[in-house]
Amino acid sequence: MDPVFELHRGGKIAVTPTVGLDSREDLSLAYTPGVARVCEAIAADPTLTREYTWVGNTVAVVTDGTAVLGLGDIGPRAAMPVMEGKAALFKKFGGVDAVPICLDTKDPDAIVEIVRALAPSFGGINLEDISAPRCFDIERRLDDLLDIPVFHDDQHGTAIVVTAALRSAATLLGRALADTRVVVSGAGAAGVAVTNMLLAAGVGDVIVVDSRGVIDADRGGVKAELASRTNVSGIRGGIGDALHGADVLVGVSGGQIPAEALERMAPGGAIFALANPNPEVHPELAARYAKVVATGRSDFPNQINNVLAFPGVFRGALDARATRVTEAMKLAAAEAIAGLVADDLRPDQIIPSALDPRVGPAVAAAVAAASKV
Amino acid sequence: MDPVFELHRGGKIAVTPTVGLDSREDLSLAYTPGVARVCEAIAADPTLTREYTWVGNTVAVVTDGTAVLGLGDIGPRAAMPVMEGKAALFKKFGGVDAVPICLDTKDPDAIVEIVRALAPSFGGINLEDISAPRCFDIERRLDDLLDIPVFHDDQHGTAIVVTAALRSAATLLGRALADTRVVVSGAGAAGVAVTNMLLAAGVGDVIVVDSRGVIDADRGGVKAELASRTNVSGIRGGIGDALHGADVLVGVSGGQIPAEALERMAPGGAIFALANPNPEVHPELAARYAKVVATGRSDFPNQINNVLAFPGVFRGALDARATRVTEAMKLAAAEAIAGLVADDLRPDQIIPSALDPRVGPAVAAAVAAASKV
Repeated sequence: MDPVFELHRGGKIAVTPTVGLDSREDLSLAYTPGVARVCEAIAADPTLTREYTWVGNTVAVVTDGTAVLGLGDIGPRAAMPVMEGKAALFKKFGGVDAVPICLDTKDPDAIVEIVRALAPSFGGINLEDISAPRCFDIERRLDDLLDIPVFHDDQHGTAIVVTAALRSAATLLGRALADTRVVVSGAGAAGVAVTNMLLAAGVGDVIVVDSRGVIDADRGGVKAELASRTNVSGIRGGIGDALHGADVLVGVSGGQIPAEALERMAPGGAIFALANPNPEVHPELAARYAKVVATGRSDFPNQINNVLAFPGVFRGALDARATRVTEAMKLAAAEAIAGLVADDLRPDQIIPSALDPRVGPAVAAAVAAASKV
Repeated sequence: MDPVFELHRGGKIAVTPTVGLDSREDLSLAYTPGVARVCEAIAADPTLTREYTWVGNTVAVVTDGTAVLGLGDIGPRAAMPVMEGKAALFKKFGGVDAVPICLDTKDPDAIVEIVRALAPSFGGINLEDISAPRCFDIERRLDDLLDIPVFHDDQHGTAIVVTAALRSAATLLGRALADTRVVVSGAGAAGVAVTNMLLAAGVGDVIVVDSRGVIDADRGGVKAELASRTNVSGIRGGIGDALHGADVLVGVSGGQIPAEALERMAPGGAIFALANPNPEVHPELAARYAKVVATGRSDFPNQINNVLAFPGVFRGALDARATRVTEAMKLAAAEAIAGLVADDLRPDQIIPSALDPRVGPAVAAAVAAASKV
């Protein structure tokens, strides 16, 4: 039997009671008649929900199944194994109770209304694998509507870990972020969020390239807005033109990038090829053109994996009772992740391991502190 | 500190991983890249959801907080302690993973659409504490829309346990169900469902009484329909008129019933006073007028508690992959519950204890078998 399918049999998470239910006394405390007094107390003061229910430690992992891993629109049922995995990681690395919610609708209005209605049951909303550009609007509307943190992990989780990796790489390469030119290949959920966060972190020159080439002032819609904040030198053309003299390539597109384009990068830079399971540039090829190489894969060094971010981000936000995840909280998360390898920085160790038990607590503490500012 | 509040601190349930997440190998099986293969397999054959996710063992406990215990419309947040308790009982007595979902909407159309959209994430839907008559329409529409079991516990859980108790009581009193007159006091969710199930079980004469008196042919709406199937002798008047010569009183209203009315019952009958925490008739008073007395309370004999039904009903329905909970499955559940005390029937033991570990498996087996018929 295939070990992957064997492991998945029956699923990867369970709901378990945390109180005894073994005697009449137990039942009368946890259920009727005792429970009625807790209900009445919350009805009188809804803030007590956080004290006397699991809501304050609980996150909904919500998807519509339209952009699952690199598999695309495979629907809500097929998305469940990823959402369960995410829920398991939330508990393992953040101590957060997470519930997978796979929705049988792709209508952004319906998704917003459903999540709004579900919100009293949760302390935070982790949006997952919702396709761009729908994900931007859905997240923005929910963030405005709800008084609990809303976080689209494909955007911000990725952006946090890329920013952490870039901080480390820049230190290693002896470059200031303000003087670094970064090319982001891909303008989907991750590409846009990475770009926004790198700009917020102080990167001086970000160029975004999608399947139609460098995003410049001629584009419409969301991309025009992106163009207005990127590509300061007004480059036009394709990925090769963008990479000419660039210090860092961040691949978040899945599209392969040819060696001829990589050859044009400034020497001694960094390549983050994050597509899974097939990186935009194979790490062995990337090593010919860059001093620092990172991928999304666990079988190569420098795995840039969202699990470094999302458990600690929500742990910190829940602990601080934050009502949203701000730019400052995301930057603090990136700094905390990079900080864990700062004393032992090497080209093959620009970020901690996904299994490093220090990461979740460090990110949580940084995020909670930043939420108070 | 009040032990009820102390017990509720931080909630009563948790989500826990059931697979190891301790090594790179673990992560590559449970998460990327391995998980992608499971997603692809489900995309190609959605029935595999039941094999390789937790969906097949998972029930949503859904409420809008409009009819919580005897507390009424206290809203979704204040309903959470009850839903968590239910989820804990689902696991303890049925091995079912249950997720509390408290919705911030009272619009039946919105509730139906939300639950429809949530359905891919669950193997069954337990509706809970939704006010009548809205609950009837919501359940009927969801039952028609979804291919997973939908079960409004306040209706059918109560009806199953009352039917089980009545079977035992009739045996003890030496009465055939067909020759028994039962008065149901209360025409809300529980009253209507109890009436329907007692009729389906073969009770010959059921009279329903609400705050306006005996439900007769002069009523409109849902109650006219109820009148058409009950009150065969055409009684008019109040609870006292209904109880004249009645063998059994089932109280599911919360309203107190005066001793003068109870005096009119046939001698040696049964009184089930199920309101919590204050029964319609105090059990000591009831014992003056009936041979068998049951309540919803754990501190008196014969506790008629839904926990005898819902964990096993869903366990059986999930095991059998039933697409709905039929009348036959509910009757089988009632028979299974009554069967556990059949050999040791006493006036103070007409149903098993809520803590009896035989109940869940017995109900599950009966329900699963009945689903195949």
